[in-house]
Amino acid sequence: MVAPLRVGIAGLGTVGAEVVRLIEQQGKVLTARCGRGVKVVSVTARSKTKKRGVDLRGIGWAKDPMAIATDPEVDCFVELMGGVGDPALSAIEAALSSGKSVVTANKALIAKHGLKLAALAEKHGGALNYEAAVAGAIPVVKTLREGLAGTGIDRVYGILNGTCNYILSRMEQEGLSFEECLKDAQRLGYAEANPSFDVDGHDTAQKLAILASLAFGTKVAQSAVYVEGITSIAAADLRAAAELGYRVKLLGVAVRTATGIEQRVHPTMVPLKSSIAQVMGVTNAVTIDGAGISPITLVGPGAGGAATASAVLADIADVARGVRALPFGRPVGKLTVTAKAPMERHEGGYYIRLMARDLAGTAARIATRLAEQKISLESIVQRHPDGMIDGNGAAKKSAPVPVILITYATSEDAMRRALQAVQSDKVISGRPQVIRIEKN
Amino acid sequence: MVAPLRVGIAGLGTVGAEVVRLIEQQGKVLTARCGRGVKVVSVTARSKTKKRGVDLRGIGWAKDPMAIATDPEVDCFVELMGGVGDPALSAIEAALSSGKSVVTANKALIAKHGLKLAALAEKHGGALNYEAAVAGAIPVVKTLREGLAGTGIDRVYGILNGTCNYILSRMEQEGLSFEECLKDAQRLGYAEANPSFDVDGHDTAQKLAILASLAFGTKVAQSAVYVEGITSIAAADLRAAAELGYRVKLLGVAVRTATGIEQRVHPTMVPLKSSIAQVMGVTNAVTIDGAGISPITLVGPGAGGAATASAVLADIADVARGVRALPFGRPVGKLTVTAKAPMERHEGGYYIRLMARDLAGTAARIATRLAEQKISLESIVQRHPDGMIDGNGAAKKSAPVPVILITYATSEDAMRRALQAVQSDKVISGRPQVIRIEKN
Repeated sequence: MVAPLRVGIAGLGTVGAEVVRLIEQQGKVLTARCGRGVKVVSVTARSKTKKRGVDLRGIGWAKDPMAIATDPEVDCFVELMGGVGDPALSAIEAALSSGKSVVTANKALIAKHGLKLAALAEKHGGALNYEAAVAGAIPVVKTLREGLAGTGIDRVYGILNGTCNYILSRMEQEGLSFEECLKDAQRLGYAEANPSFDVDGHDTAQKLAILASLAFGTKVAQSAVYVEGITSIAAADLRAAAELGYRVKLLGVAVRTATGIEQRVHPTMVPLKSSIAQVMGVTNAVTIDGAGISPITLVGPGAGGAATASAVLADIADVARGVRALPFGRPVGKLTVTAKAPMERHEGGYYIRLMARDLAGTAARIATRLAEQKISLESIVQRHPDGMIDGNGAAKKSAPVPVILITYATSEDAMRRALQAVQSDKVISGRPQVIRIEKN
Repeated sequence: MVAPLRVGIAGLGTVGAEVVRLIEQQGKVLTARCGRGVKVVSVTARSKTKKRGVDLRGIGWAKDPMAIATDPEVDCFVELMGGVGDPALSAIEAALSSGKSVVTANKALIAKHGLKLAALAEKHGGALNYEAAVAGAIPVVKTLREGLAGTGIDRVYGILNGTCNYILSRMEQEGLSFEECLKDAQRLGYAEANPSFDVDGHDTAQKLAILASLAFGTKVAQSAVYVEGITSIAAADLRAAAELGYRVKLLGVAVRTATGIEQRVHPTMVPLKSSIAQVMGVTNAVTIDGAGISPITLVGPGAGGAATASAVLADIADVARGVRALPFGRPVGKLTVTAKAPMERHEGGYYIRLMARDLAGTAARIATRLAEQKISLESIVQRHPDGMIDGNGAAKKSAPVPVILITYATSEDAMRRALQAVQSDKVISGRPQVIRIEKN
């Protein structure tokens, strides 16, 4: 019998406490599955006395994370403190430098310092596992790192932020405004007091940067991600989307294009019948398009103590079992640099919602401006003030009338130029709403 | 640099040829991902001269599978011949006995001989990987074996047979009969000339038995699976299901119950809005319910040369990388025996479609018979001959009228007794159609 894996855990919040509890409760199964036991030998957290609903007797209390990271009696350092810098960063560096394996749920840290840490793991032979950092309990890191090892991947995209998906789902299902749903999300603990990191798309961008690296063998580069959040989405957009056979999701998309790897986060119209459109509430989903095979979609809980702890435990089990995958699936030295693919060169269909000042004149003008940019329209619908959609009817002259356009694939550049021209024509009121369409 | 992994492949059908092609084409990526090269050194197949669209120059041709399995110059034996007995079985045994790793896509063989082979792999230290045997390119074996290592699993279920899902999808979407869709499936190569293995549920049962073992740590036992196929499903059932908010899928379900692990394959009503209901055509899907976390659903191509080859390649990559997971996630000696959970004790909701001879009398009689068995009805709808559903109206006296019942959860036993009583009452014509409901 191999000696048990000795685990030290820094951070005993909901996730940390649940990991301690699971290791205790699932001890026998873990031993059978890993061929050796898993034992928590040391923990630390800000408060030693806080009630956590978990039995810490028999487990050493370390004075700080670094004490665990450098403890020769610890084989695997589990970082669940969070934070993009110290103490998490230096503790992880110390652990990896001493040949320990590291398990973390810290996406911000992996997105920012992942390469440096992966190089340390490679050099000293430890594992650096971070399944919980992206899409919670969904085994997407493992799938990209190991499961599709030989398949050329063309595109990976998904719903990576439960807060945004919760807000968009409620907005659509109940016809509520963004602000109302955000408030509810905050009340329910799905959104932070300062929600910007989630709703402006940055959380999704961090996760996407990690997925893109795993999928395409590129260096993680959050700065290469184009980011748009969901704050401008109106209930009217969600209604129109449904009527046109789409649903709006905040997607992170990384795709191989002629100009390089395009990485973008933005509200996206996905076909109503697609797997990803069915993903409602705080659930996450990731779709992987491999060369020559139909897409694979993984759906599951993206956050929450139990889901995150489950992913952390799977990572710990891999360490116990002796699995040593390269942190980004390839040696750090072989990861390539991704230039930020210019968003102007993005090609795709667009949903555009305008408020036309004068319907007859406006429609003609818009058609002309789009034609100038060689943009073809899949559909154009005008919404009367009474809320009915009508492809032909006219509306009252006084009030601006919503016009919704769906374009065939065109370049972002052409679309922007056309809309700029429409705006200079002063035939619309306010700014046009633009949502990109992702076919699958 | 570690020496390349030397691979020998027995069987060069669509999958085998594609594996050879992928290893050649993805060589660089594989080397980067595995830390060593992967090299096909030996192949064999029934015909040496058949055109396969792949370059076999530089690769040795073995006289038979056993010659590869016992070749000291081969590290990894890839079995892609199929067949539940020899030559596949004895070649795999020989390979494992000599400490080689084995990769196979042969679900029948794993379902029947998996335990014996796993014991050999354990004893001699080789891997036994069979990702492609269940749900094609979906990494469900890996996810159950490694990804959810520490999580107690309560239920695993899925669409595991693309042929059946294709037939059910077409029947629903186009209102066609089972026979018409089966013919099309045969014409398109989705179904065999003798379709019984697929449409009677046996293919699903083999795959389910493997998944149940991985999920629950039980010995693979296809004989413990209750099996019903899709041949009795009528277009009328699919229409009624849609009207009631359900869709019919052939599911394999393995679930932990008070009486043990229940394993069953049968047409199933799933909520129309569930992830699994969106899975149409030849696509497969598996949902895993873990203790305390929301379900994880994996969706993707379940068959086809490219999808199967992709899974085989991922398995080979794991061998190259040195990953040695236990074939069934736990030592064979620790796998427990599953008794076949008696289907009579299954608890769940039911969809029942009857042809009532005389509507007024029949409804009262059915209500009485169900009440005698303490079965509560969620809904009862009567379909007039004109096709409209109506909860109250009466129909023409002469023709039998379809009555559709949805029950709340009850035992299979009670449901069967109630229906037997209804049949003895001679108030219905023909046999009742029963479809189990799976909530999620």
